[in-house]
This record gives sequence, C-alpha cells and structure tokens, in this order.
Amino acid sequence: MKNLVIAQSGGPTAAINASLAGIVERAMTCAEIGTIYGARYGIKGVLKDDLVDIGARLSSPGALTRLIHTPSSALGSCRVKLRPPEENESDYEKIFGYLASRGAGRFLYIGGNDSMDTVAKLSAYGKAKGIDISIMGVPKTIDNDLCGMDHSPGFGSAAKYIATTFSELWCDCRVYDIPAVTIVEVMGRHVGWLTAASALARGRDCPAPQLIYLPEVPFDNAQFIGDIKKELEKSPAVLIAVSEGLRRADGSFVGEDSQSGIADVFGHAYLSGAGRVLEGLVRREIGCKVRSVELNLMQRCAGHLASQSDLTEARLLGAAALDRALKGVSGEVSVLNRLPGEEYRVAYGSICAKEVANKEKYVPNDWISESGNDVTDEMIRYLTPLAQYEQLYSDCFQLSR
Amino acid sequence: MKNLVIAQSGGPTAAINASLAGIVERAMTCAEIGTIYGARYGIKGVLKDDLVDIGARLSSPGALTRLIHTPSSALGSCRVKLRPPEENESDYEKIFGYLASRGAGRFLYIGGNDSMDTVAKLSAYGKAKGIDISIMGVPKTIDNDLCGMDHSPGFGSAAKYIATTFSELWCDCRVYDIPAVTIVEVMGRHVGWLTAASALARGRDCPAPQLIYLPEVPFDNAQFIGDIKKELEKSPAVLIAVSEGLRRADGSFVGEDSQSGIADVFGHAYLSGAGRVLEGLVRREIGCKVRSVELNLMQRCAGHLASQSDLTEARLLGAAALDRALKGVSGEVSVLNRLPGEEYRVAYGSICAKEVANKEKYVPNDWISESGNDVTDEMIRYLTPLAQYEQLYSDCFQLSR
Repeated sequence: MKNLVIAQSGGPTAAINASLAGIVERAMTCAEIGTIYGARYGIKGVLKDDLVDIGARLSSPGALTRLIHTPSSALGSCRVKLRPPEENESDYEKIFGYLASRGAGRFLYIGGNDSMDTVAKLSAYGKAKGIDISIMGVPKTIDNDLCGMDHSPGFGSAAKYIATTFSELWCDCRVYDIPAVTIVEVMGRHVGWLTAASALARGRDCPAPQLIYLPEVPFDNAQFIGDIKKELEKSPAVLIAVSEGLRRADGSFVGEDSQSGIADVFGHAYLSGAGRVLEGLVRREIGCKVRSVELNLMQRCAGHLASQSDLTEARLLGAAALDRALKGVSGEVSVLNRLPGEEYRVAYGSICAKEVANKEKYVPNDWISESGNDVTDEMIRYLTPLAQYEQLYSDCFQLSR
Repeated sequence: MKNLVIAQSGGPTAAINASLAGIVERAMTCAEIGTIYGARYGIKGVLKDDLVDIGARLSSPGALTRLIHTPSSALGSCRVKLRPPEENESDYEKIFGYLASRGAGRFLYIGGNDSMDTVAKLSAYGKAKGIDISIMGVPKTIDNDLCGMDHSPGFGSAAKYIATTFSELWCDCRVYDIPAVTIVEVMGRHVGWLTAASALARGRDCPAPQLIYLPEVPFDNAQFIGDIKKELEKSPAVLIAVSEGLRRADGSFVGEDSQSGIADVFGHAYLSGAGRVLEGLVRREIGCKVRSVELNLMQRCAGHLASQSDLTEARLLGAAALDRALKGVSGEVSVLNRLPGEEYRVAYGSICAKEVANKEKYVPNDWISESGNDVTDEMIRYLTPLAQYEQLYSDCFQLSR
C-alpha cells in the first residue's frame, strides 16, 4: 500500500477542484492507496515537502461537495516551470527524495500545458533513474488550448459564464434608443475559444454579440470600424466580443498599442487592454457613445455558473488519471474525446504528456466566418454541450421592439 | 373603464421588469382597466405617443415569467429630466394630450430619484389644470439611495451579485503564496451601499474583503497604504472593495485624479476610475503584485443572480402603486418599510413623490467602522435579508491553510 500526492498548478478555473475531488473520491475507495496528501502551492509544495493530509480533511461527503463547488485551487497554485535535469538536477532529487520519504507511489499534477511539461520531465527522469513512482497529469485550463483532447476541463464553465454575461449585457446595452457601442474584452492571450463562446448568448430576442474578433485573425482597424458602422445601421446598440490577445498583421498586440498614446508620469506606455484601446478608436473614428468592459477574473472563477458537464468531466478526468497510475502508467495525461453521433457523449483515455506539453490548440480557420468577425455554426455545435448553456435564470424579453 | 400607461426610466437593474410585471398582473385582473400600454424609452415615448399594447404581448403566463427574469428595462429607458412647466409647458401639454387621446386614466413611472421628480412635476401640473389622470411612481435603483423607504428595489439583486462575486474573487486571489493586492471597484457615485454589500461575502473560509472604502468617508492615500500594509502582514492575499465615488477631503474624485499623470495623445487627463488610480498608487508605494477589477455593467444586469426577495418586492411595489392610482391618488411613490422584529418582514405604502425626488440617502456614519475602512454589524444585519445571500453555488473551501 503506497501513498498518493496531488498538486494543482496554473491559473484558476471553476472546475480544477472538481478534478481534485475526483482523484480523492477514487483513492478513498481504493485499498492500494494509503494516505492522500495534497501539496501546497503546486510543485513548490513538493519541492519543500509542504504537504497536507487531505484524505482526512475530505473524509466527510459534505467536504467533498464543498470542494467541488469552490472555484480556483483549494490547495493553492504556482506558476513554476521545472528546468531540465541537465540544468538543475537538484530539484528532481528533492522532488523524488521527498516523494519517497512520504511513501508515495503516485504523484498526480492537475494543470495546463506548462504543468504537463512538468509531468513529462518528472516521469522521464524517474524512469531513467528506475524510480517506481507513477507521475500522471490531469488537464485543466479555461483557455481550451490543450492539444490531444476534445476540450479542456474548466473551459465549459468559463464559456457558460461568458454566454450568460453577454446575454445580460445585451439587455443592458439596448436600453436607450441612442447609438451605443459596447466592447467586451474576453480572456485568451493566444487562442479565441473563450471569445467564441460569447456566440452562445444569441437566441430568442438576443442577436448579440453582433461582432466577434478572435486572435487567430489578424486585426485591422479600418475593417473593425467598417463592421461597426454596418451594424449601427441595423441596431442602435452594438455589442462586440474581442479577445485580449488580438494582434495586428505585424504581430503586435492591439492591447499594447503604443499608438493609443497613453503614458504614465514616467512616460512609460500604459498597457490598456484591447477593449480599452478599441474603445478609444471607436470614440475617435465614429464618435458615438462607446464603453469597454473587461470580464476580468470573474470569467475564470464564477463557480456559481459552473457547467454541470464540466464539473462531472473534470471529476472523471481526475479519477481516470489515478486509474492509469494504479496500473503503473507514468508520463501520461488523462483526456476525454467526443464520440460520434447526435447526442453529446465522451470517452476517457490517456495520452503521452509530451503531446500536451508546451503546445497550443488554435481555433480552426473553418470555424471562423469568412468575414473574420464571427464564428460558424460548426463552432456553435461544438460549444453548446460544453457550456451546457440554459437560460435558466436570465432572459432577454423585449417590449420596445 | 380607462386605459393604463406605464414607462421605465433610468439605469438598468435586475428587478425593474419585475415591477413592470407586477403592475401588468394587477391590471390584468382589474375590471376598471382597459388597454395596458407601455411607452417606449421612458417619458420620451409618452412625449411622442410611441406606445406598445403590452397587455396583449404579456397575456400568456410564460411571457410574464420571461419578463420577470429579464434584467434591465424591457420597454427601453431614457435619462430625460422634464424642465418645470414655466420653462417648457409644451412638453406637459404633449404628455397630457397624448395620454388623454389614448384614454389613459393612470400613468405609472418606474425609476429613480430623477424619475420621481418627473412624477411630482406631472402630478402637480395635472392637478393645477384639473386633469383627471393619476400619476404614480414606482421606485428602482441599484444604488439604494432613495429616501423614504427601507431600501430600493434592484439594490438587493446587485448586492447579491457583489457578495457572490467577492467570495469567488477571494478564491482566485488567494491562489498563490506571494503578496497580492486586488482592488475591486463597485458602482455608487455618491453613496456606498453597493460597496458595503461586499461585506456579505465574508463567511466560513472567506475573510474578504478585508478592507472596504465608501464615498461617505474622505479618502486618504497614506491611510489606505497603511491599512494594506497591515493586512499584508496577516495574509499574502488582500482583497479590497472601493466605491467608484471615493473622494478626497478636498472633494475631488479619486477616480479623476489628475495626479495619476495619465493623459491621452491630446494631453487630456485620462479618467481611469478609482480602482485603476489606486492600483497605480499601490504599485508605486508598496510594489507588490496588484490588480484592479471593475464590476462594471455586470453588477446591475446580472439577472441570473437576482435576489428572490428583491424580485418579489419589486413586483408588489408595482402592484401597490397601481392600487393607489385606482383610488385616484396622484403624485405619490409606492414604498416598503421593514417591520420590527427578528424575522424580516415588510409593509407596503406610499409617500409624496417630492420626498423622494432629487434626494439621496447616504450610509449613516454609525454603520461605518471607526477606522473608516469597514462596515459595522448593523450594516450586515440590514443587508443580509435584502440580498438573500446564500452560498448556493460557490464555496471557498481551502486546503492550503
């Protein structure tokens, strides 16, 4: 009977604790596992043997339920990337030394593509040294940029928050009969999945967002202004989704536009975010009422709007990774893939961590409209079951049209 | 049998459509009322006879339910303040002319303190001219600044959104083990009620926000930095609620601080918002990781987090105003007041619109802590039943402490 160590890494999501709960649940009923440890603040906790007996802390069903409904990482997180053993072997010696001293037979790491790099490196090092500790990864990120799986756990909940919020912002934006442009900045430094999820807001009485700009499409000021002018002819209220990661054809970020001319007292360029820069552009070029809104941290920690599909999948991905570890597998990441057919169903499996580490999955070109300012129906079909978006609470009923 | 005209005015809330539904429901079962009209875009719709037969549009129970769960004004809104009849009698002649031509015996206006000024002026004019049309006001505003009532409908839902969001932001902020200050800017240009509602986030595993700054207390940079340094000694993560309306002792808005030195290409001071200005201050004076977040439009239109108490009260305030109008009362606003006792109960009544018009209800001094950076238990007792705040969805379970 060997012990288990689990850690969480990277940025918050609404589902990362569900993965932790999934591992713990599976471990609790498993005779081959002794103590269940959590490392505090990711791999940093393993590096200094800073562990908590979470099996004891989570031994009541009420505690597990609370954990699942707590957004962000209950164990704390870090943004540390291990250097290769050739450069810094002492970190590897510390990690495996502490794991061995704790009687650990398995180490599970929940995180994004950087964390899967840690899984790949640790597993390769352990195998090379003949150390009998399974290292497995459990995927998570709101960005949906992980390769080798249909989608990333954490994404569906963020997508549901974004869709719900856009439908509510539409009700807010359309309230006056004067032309008004509202630009909403969504997270996603390199990939447009989260911004695309704004399209799920559309439905009965909600045509918004009318325009969607992803970082996969080179951004052009003149095209943007032209698109808005066309929409203003159809409706006084125009709601626009823009990715924080928008770039121009020359590769520069829109949100770091020195052309905005905004500088602080020291003359340093003031990084405004894409939404704010574009708000200034619309004010100068069109001159109508214009606002920008950042969904900011709320889109990644809105546990109260977590997608039930997402929480369930995150739990099962945790359990699946432990299952593989119990079979002695190491250096892999649990994944889920969509099965063919009309009904949304998934199958769980695992792939080599190297196939996930340091890679990014972009929105495919043919899921972006030809005009470059919208997504296609195929994208909507892909997104819908993930966000499990129901207009349960808010509606967009309108009497003024 | 006379007809009824209803309009909505001012900024969005999650409950203003519930008041509209409350009036319509009451009118539907009332033999004394014929057609139920809605004016599009507030008093602007009455001024140009732009009416919709909303009785017909809302004659299915499903439509009424959809209306209640739609945030913001389904009829559209405006920000128009009528000039006195001495200055512009033609507006009054138009309004009463169109109301008479539509066979209206009552006009109900749902709005904030500016709209109650419209109610007072129209009613006084009508009485002076011997016109038999009852003009009644129905209160709403997220700011909770309306005088003459225990609280304003719309406030409880915004408070619930704010409390839920602060508890989720706390989970996000505490995730790393490095010092990090997160400053969240909450609406309320003149009054601190909404910012105070952030205190409802506190509970099991959530000590945040640790600091709360209301516009009723003169803001001081040195005090603010000292408060944060003290909190950083207790916890690496510090979450702070600040009102957008913070002012210094000299009356200047913190959010319009020209001292921030941020200017656009034309040299105009760049209005950053209080949160952003204070983010810069913390970066300069403390130098730790610091972020600012604006709750922005989301706090006033988050229908999915509407408080059930708030929606019910908003509906009944609509019905109460119509009841008074049916008795021939004019120039009043329906209000609700809290009954004495442990259990939260309210009574509905009405008061003269002049007692509400153009006035603001501030947070009382003795509901603010002596240190000026928190609220008292009395404030918490006042707020709790309004937001009807339950940690239904999100929790703040922590394993890293």
